[in-house]
Amino acid sequence: MTDTFTLTGRNFIGSNPSTKGNDIFQAIDPKTGVPFGTEFHSATSEEIGYAAILAAEAFETFGHSMGASRAEFLEAIASEMESNSQAIIEQANFETALPIPRLEGEMKRTTGQLRMFAEFVRDDSWVDARIEIAIPGRSPIPKPDLRRMLIPIGPIAVFGSSNFPLAYSVAGGDTASALAAGCPVIVKAHPAHPGTSELVAQCVLKAAKAREQPNGVFSMIHGGPGPGIALVHHRILKGVGFTGSLQGGRALFDAANSRPVPIPVFAEMGSVNPVFILPSALEDDVSGLAKGYAGSLTLGVGQFCTNPGIVVALESSMLDEWVSQVQSEISGQSGTMLTPNIGKSYCASVGNLSSYPSVGTIVASSEPGTPSLFKCEAKAFLEDDSLQSEVFGPCGLVVVCKSADEMLQVAKSLHGQLTATIHSKPSEVPKELIRILEQKAGRLVFNGWPTGVEVCAAMTHGGPYPASTDSRFSAVGTTSIARWVRPISYQNWPIELLPSELR
Amino acid sequence: MTDTFTLTGRNFIGSNPSTKGNDIFQAIDPKTGVPFGTEFHSATSEEIGYAAILAAEAFETFGHSMGASRAEFLEAIASEMESNSQAIIEQANFETALPIPRLEGEMKRTTGQLRMFAEFVRDDSWVDARIEIAIPGRSPIPKPDLRRMLIPIGPIAVFGSSNFPLAYSVAGGDTASALAAGCPVIVKAHPAHPGTSELVAQCVLKAAKAREQPNGVFSMIHGGPGPGIALVHHRILKGVGFTGSLQGGRALFDAANSRPVPIPVFAEMGSVNPVFILPSALEDDVSGLAKGYAGSLTLGVGQFCTNPGIVVALESSMLDEWVSQVQSEISGQSGTMLTPNIGKSYCASVGNLSSYPSVGTIVASSEPGTPSLFKCEAKAFLEDDSLQSEVFGPCGLVVVCKSADEMLQVAKSLHGQLTATIHSKPSEVPKELIRILEQKAGRLVFNGWPTGVEVCAAMTHGGPYPASTDSRFSAVGTTSIARWVRPISYQNWPIELLPSELR
Repeated sequence: MTDTFTLTGRNFIGSNPSTKGNDIFQAIDPKTGVPFGTEFHSATSEEIGYAAILAAEAFETFGHSMGASRAEFLEAIASEMESNSQAIIEQANFETALPIPRLEGEMKRTTGQLRMFAEFVRDDSWVDARIEIAIPGRSPIPKPDLRRMLIPIGPIAVFGSSNFPLAYSVAGGDTASALAAGCPVIVKAHPAHPGTSELVAQCVLKAAKAREQPNGVFSMIHGGPGPGIALVHHRILKGVGFTGSLQGGRALFDAANSRPVPIPVFAEMGSVNPVFILPSALEDDVSGLAKGYAGSLTLGVGQFCTNPGIVVALESSMLDEWVSQVQSEISGQSGTMLTPNIGKSYCASVGNLSSYPSVGTIVASSEPGTPSLFKCEAKAFLEDDSLQSEVFGPCGLVVVCKSADEMLQVAKSLHGQLTATIHSKPSEVPKELIRILEQKAGRLVFNGWPTGVEVCAAMTHGGPYPASTDSRFSAVGTTSIARWVRPISYQNWPIELLPSELR
Repeated sequence: MTDTFTLTGRNFIGSNPSTKGNDIFQAIDPKTGVPFGTEFHSATSEEIGYAAILAAEAFETFGHSMGASRAEFLEAIASEMESNSQAIIEQANFETALPIPRLEGEMKRTTGQLRMFAEFVRDDSWVDARIEIAIPGRSPIPKPDLRRMLIPIGPIAVFGSSNFPLAYSVAGGDTASALAAGCPVIVKAHPAHPGTSELVAQCVLKAAKAREQPNGVFSMIHGGPGPGIALVHHRILKGVGFTGSLQGGRALFDAANSRPVPIPVFAEMGSVNPVFILPSALEDDVSGLAKGYAGSLTLGVGQFCTNPGIVVALESSMLDEWVSQVQSEISGQSGTMLTPNIGKSYCASVGNLSSYPSVGTIVASSEPGTPSLFKCEAKAFLEDDSLQSEVFGPCGLVVVCKSADEMLQVAKSLHGQLTATIHSKPSEVPKELIRILEQKAGRLVFNGWPTGVEVCAAMTHGGPYPASTDSRFSAVGTTSIARWVRPISYQNWPIELLPSELR
């Protein structure tokens, strides 16, 4: 721990530390399942309401601030996180069991995202200004002067994810994009890494103070689903960003849509990220493909939303060889999962798959974090929708097709996905397979693996439901700012009263 | 009627006329309340299902067609409508009582919209292609080649509106933007103008055939809420466009969100379009302002979603004079409303307002389509949320404020709006009023009136709920295509397999 920040277990209602509630919890050591360290206070309705009011007040100035000012704020957050990098990473390592090098990489990604959005909004050119000058003499009626730009929608609720304690939590992509747009943020910290969350929150608050941002531009509350739903229900909140499970995302989506005034929810809920391995790829390099798949499947103990949970391939002796090599690659591997509950769920899902009469077990263990591999015939996969359910963790299912046509049927049967991948010689890909997968996924990968999400303007991280609640947006990259903004048009507005972007 | 098309009363399932149902209705003469003419068949679930399947099949080619091909289709629809303009306008006049000159204008707007979208998509440059070339040598990991573009989301359900029988019905803005994007459309015709709907549907189908578009790219069904909800619930449908009442829009929104796989709904549900008249405007030209307001309030018998239902002004003798002049302007006016039910609702709302103890009646009549004007104190308005409810028709409520501060309180209390208007000398507008109204509306009008929605790239027609279900989109102008598209990214994809826009 650095000298700078000490864990307090408090909620931060704007810059005010607050512990009004009696619901207290601790972080749990993922390795032992034993609670440890600081006691954290779940937020009360009163605290949530106060955070919302502060956010609304902050929005009155923050929502009209210059991009340059918000850019400085984002950069200051990045710098504060770097200054406290060691303490944050250590705490995250205690709380999530993610290895230090992984967390160091995630820290770089997180500060990189903050700086990317700083660059993106600094000169205010991102607001997509459209100016149409009046044509007073137009017949039959004059054309008015119309000027349109994007403005922030208001305070946003951000839900920290369990599997990205930095890049998709307190100062992660959702927070960075919302702040960049001019929306105050109230984060609900993920209870699996409350200490990491507090340290990062302190960085954000220190940066806000240093850059003279209004109190309430950022708040962070602790708690489980109760405070989360209360936050989404609060009338002041105008949008929701979430990364996590289908069940959690859908609950927030339903809560937001049942409000008297519904608000948009962007929930990124993961998927099974199907990988289609065509014969020409196996002919080319069975062992490279086996190593590549095993690496992607087990990366981060399989706890990525882009984890390649399903492989689709044609029946062949080469496929058998590939399966056997993957089996060798993953056997004996093991890792600690993010939380004991995630470990339990993983084991339950693996046990469940083992018990399917139509599913063959290649590798399965009752230990959390130990990779598993199953196999089934395409016919069985097509007949049982539940085989498409995501298993969070390093668990793969190989769907064996008897024909190219059956492979297309499997592709057609897939639910919405974040990604879909094809391994093949380019000349041997059936065009129809591409056409089908374009309808299923937000990102298509060729001769690669879906894990590893590049943060850039050309990235789409999202996809048809249940990959996300709204495929029209991305959760990663500069375009993700579109989730938090709306157009406004000014008609015949006096130049001197227009926002500077439209003059 | 022309020789070309004869009314049949059928649903069009793709190009197949279909009358499987026994639920039969006729158009109702708005002037007399008497049913007349052709018997129309409400669609059955079976017909809806078949239309959906055809739409999915059509999407396989239409969703990948060149923009130039879709542009020709849209232009052909516009030409067919022009060729049958007289018959369509006559029928619309019978069914809606909208005057011929208004319908002629609406016809021009409708064909103009179709041609605008044709231009917009013709060269495929609208797909917002973003290409990031690989950096194989990047440290610590190589940057992949990533290319992103927008693609259509799939078959769209479009609900015809009662008040725009052409521009927001069968071949109106929602249909034009969805077809332009590459999404097949299934229209549910508004039962208030089924014959107009059929004539326009025949134009669309003739154009589709002439331009060799796939069967199912367009279907049109008849019916009320039952078939409408069935359409929204159908698993093949991927989005919904609606223009109409809050009750109707919310029902579709709730239906779409309760699906196992939710789909986005863009419902434009109207608003009261507050007009703030500041003292300097009254000082400048009381009588011009009175004439202007009366004209906007009564335009189209007040049946516009941008109808200025609420005026907010400071107590003064000039305001009294303005009210008195508006009273003179609107007294004695009358018009036929779109349907007998709309007329009944209007009278009920006017009667209701007359009975409020806190509301003063300036002009009120129990005749449908006769303009009404009411007055209340800001205090009463602030205390009773129901005074903000939209009265569909030529009904205005003047909210009289005792101070500039009270005016700001009224502004703050407003629900979401399509538009908000300020009349003032530019130098005398409180900045805070602008800041508040920016949070309330999709379009701000200065020294003008909200009726009359310019169709262009800088228009925003939409706004915070309940003006629309998603303020992040516009229902009018080229940007409205964004409702029907989503991004997709291709990672390390072989050039020869990329869509042409990304090569």
